[in-house]
Amino acid sequence: MSGRDLKEEMVVTPWRVSGEVDYGKLIEQFGTQPITEELLKRLKKHAGYLHIQLKRQIFFSHRDLDWWLDMYEAEKPVGLYTGRGPSGPVHLGHLLPWFFTKYLQDAFNAHLYFQMTDDEKFLIHDNLTLEDTTGYMYENTLDLIACGLDAEKTHVISDVNHISHLYRLSLQVGKLVTYSTIKAIFGLSDSDNIGIIFFPAIQATPCFIQSVREKRNVAVLIPAAIDQDPYWRMTRDIAEKLGFYKPAQMHAKFLPGLGRRGKMSASMPETAIFTVDPPEVAAKKIMTAYTGGRPTVREQKEHGGDPSICTVYAYCYYLFEEDDKKLTELERECRAGTIICGDCKARLAEKVKRFLIEFQEKREKARDIVDQFFIK
Amino acid sequence: MSGRDLKEEMVVTPWRVSGEVDYGKLIEQFGTQPITEELLKRLKKHAGYLHIQLKRQIFFSHRDLDWWLDMYEAEKPVGLYTGRGPSGPVHLGHLLPWFFTKYLQDAFNAHLYFQMTDDEKFLIHDNLTLEDTTGYMYENTLDLIACGLDAEKTHVISDVNHISHLYRLSLQVGKLVTYSTIKAIFGLSDSDNIGIIFFPAIQATPCFIQSVREKRNVAVLIPAAIDQDPYWRMTRDIAEKLGFYKPAQMHAKFLPGLGRRGKMSASMPETAIFTVDPPEVAAKKIMTAYTGGRPTVREQKEHGGDPSICTVYAYCYYLFEEDDKKLTELERECRAGTIICGDCKARLAEKVKRFLIEFQEKREKARDIVDQFFIK
Repeated sequence: MSGRDLKEEMVVTPWRVSGEVDYGKLIEQFGTQPITEELLKRLKKHAGYLHIQLKRQIFFSHRDLDWWLDMYEAEKPVGLYTGRGPSGPVHLGHLLPWFFTKYLQDAFNAHLYFQMTDDEKFLIHDNLTLEDTTGYMYENTLDLIACGLDAEKTHVISDVNHISHLYRLSLQVGKLVTYSTIKAIFGLSDSDNIGIIFFPAIQATPCFIQSVREKRNVAVLIPAAIDQDPYWRMTRDIAEKLGFYKPAQMHAKFLPGLGRRGKMSASMPETAIFTVDPPEVAAKKIMTAYTGGRPTVREQKEHGGDPSICTVYAYCYYLFEEDDKKLTELERECRAGTIICGDCKARLAEKVKRFLIEFQEKREKARDIVDQFFIK
Repeated sequence: MSGRDLKEEMVVTPWRVSGEVDYGKLIEQFGTQPITEELLKRLKKHAGYLHIQLKRQIFFSHRDLDWWLDMYEAEKPVGLYTGRGPSGPVHLGHLLPWFFTKYLQDAFNAHLYFQMTDDEKFLIHDNLTLEDTTGYMYENTLDLIACGLDAEKTHVISDVNHISHLYRLSLQVGKLVTYSTIKAIFGLSDSDNIGIIFFPAIQATPCFIQSVREKRNVAVLIPAAIDQDPYWRMTRDIAEKLGFYKPAQMHAKFLPGLGRRGKMSASMPETAIFTVDPPEVAAKKIMTAYTGGRPTVREQKEHGGDPSICTVYAYCYYLFEEDDKKLTELERECRAGTIICGDCKARLAEKVKRFLIEFQEKREKARDIVDQFFIK
């Protein structure tokens, strides 16, 4: 029986992603819109090129992106907001939307508010202290900076350290949201702690912070993985009551883990490439990754492999083979059986190693400038 | 039918006090201890005298006051914490525990953390903005200062303005408290907003703030009206889990309003003396107060009045007649019918006027030093 037959029910919430994710179905379930050719054209026009994550449909869904582009084209103020729950080291799955956010920041010359939810991660993990989560917050900020964001236009908010920038707005949000609503949207229960029940108000706040600071209404776009959508549904419900625009959103798919299925997850370290992994360790993880190959070289040569279920192919597709022609060629070779998994893995492992060496250099240099990135 | 026969059920919660309050029954219901003669002796020994609110049993109940005195006597660090919900101007009922807190601060040379819950008042009142509640916070701080507290040893915390002093600790508290607990203790429901659900964690925090700032475990005593007790029950449940002492408490009775029954309430301005009332206006309120007198002067002279239901007598008892002998004499005259209500009211009105003139002078002077009182 192949892995593909063992279907697990799809679950996508801010705290859990499991089962085989059907992104078309998510668009229906969540009531979002697919990113159309026309929208891609408009994005390309402003950025000068189409980012790999757009042409490969890794960012695949949106809410009000058309409106956000209208605002930009009408020379109204626009901004960006995304974030990270700092519960451990950053892996490639986390970097994915950050690379894309840098593309948007450059294309639209936009301020980015980046929220580090070191409060949330403390509240939901029994074994994490505030020292742990604020420590990860600091380390994860180095990763963010290594993605090349602009120090002048990026404002990292540690909820714990920078709460004074948030609290007034969070109270205004929290006053408009009942426990019933939170229960329905996030599936929380009466035995959840009161911190995590209030937290959605904190996560909504950076949508409005630029408007308050600039004393004018800013159109905000949130590029993020689709599991965060419930927060923005809630935020969109209350935005106009507070006199702000509803935030627009772009939703990304999850980078698969290196195991047989599921998104890359820090809780299964052998299936994730962390930015702080020694490059040799990362290379070894690639060499033991789950592929779409056949059990033997002979069978592989005879019948070919299946890139559609191969994590090595997925890594090339998502991140490591930007050249469309080369990617098509790889897929062809795989299906034809003219390349075997060992060679294919070795190629990717080499690319990942090179990537990590460069990234880790930038990450270390970030220590000298990290303070410039925190909100002031 | 006399007013006394119309018994309304007693309700005492942080947000509502109604019915005729039976303080003996509250001690039973809340599971607190009466303040004994022995405790009064110990307090008197340290303070040098017994405060009017102790000898008249206005502070009537406690939790762990004996332990708190033990700690003080063993030269362990002790502190004080109380607060105010700034939803409007301050009236005499609010001042009552503040005068007493000053007595404790002087007697025990203790730091006082004073919380202004300008977040809570915003969250529970539909018609109040954050500008309103922080405005009242500032104005109410002037009243606090006018009570004579020590600038060096008093730290006023506006939740809204000084959240950065609280948030880390509030998260630690909030992580340990479930919605079920809050629902049970405070009677909140699913249709309450998520801000007010988290708020008990904010109100618990100043119990521990001195310990954190001084990096040693401080024994904290909370002098406050008894309706706040639910907060401290919750706080006592989690204090030791966080490595702190349970806060001790002293509970005050409510100053009656000038109307027929119930505590002095800002929502019935004609029955409350506000510190910002023009003295003549306050005097007029006293002249129309509810008394224990007879319908006519003739009946009064014949049968005497009833001080036990008289608000004018209550004001002398709680605040304006410190001399026990004079108070006894007033009670005797009233019951004997040798004093009529008009004269009795006029005497009190004169005292209230003099009090307000002096208090308002101190209150205005406080504007120059108010910044010294905010937490740093």
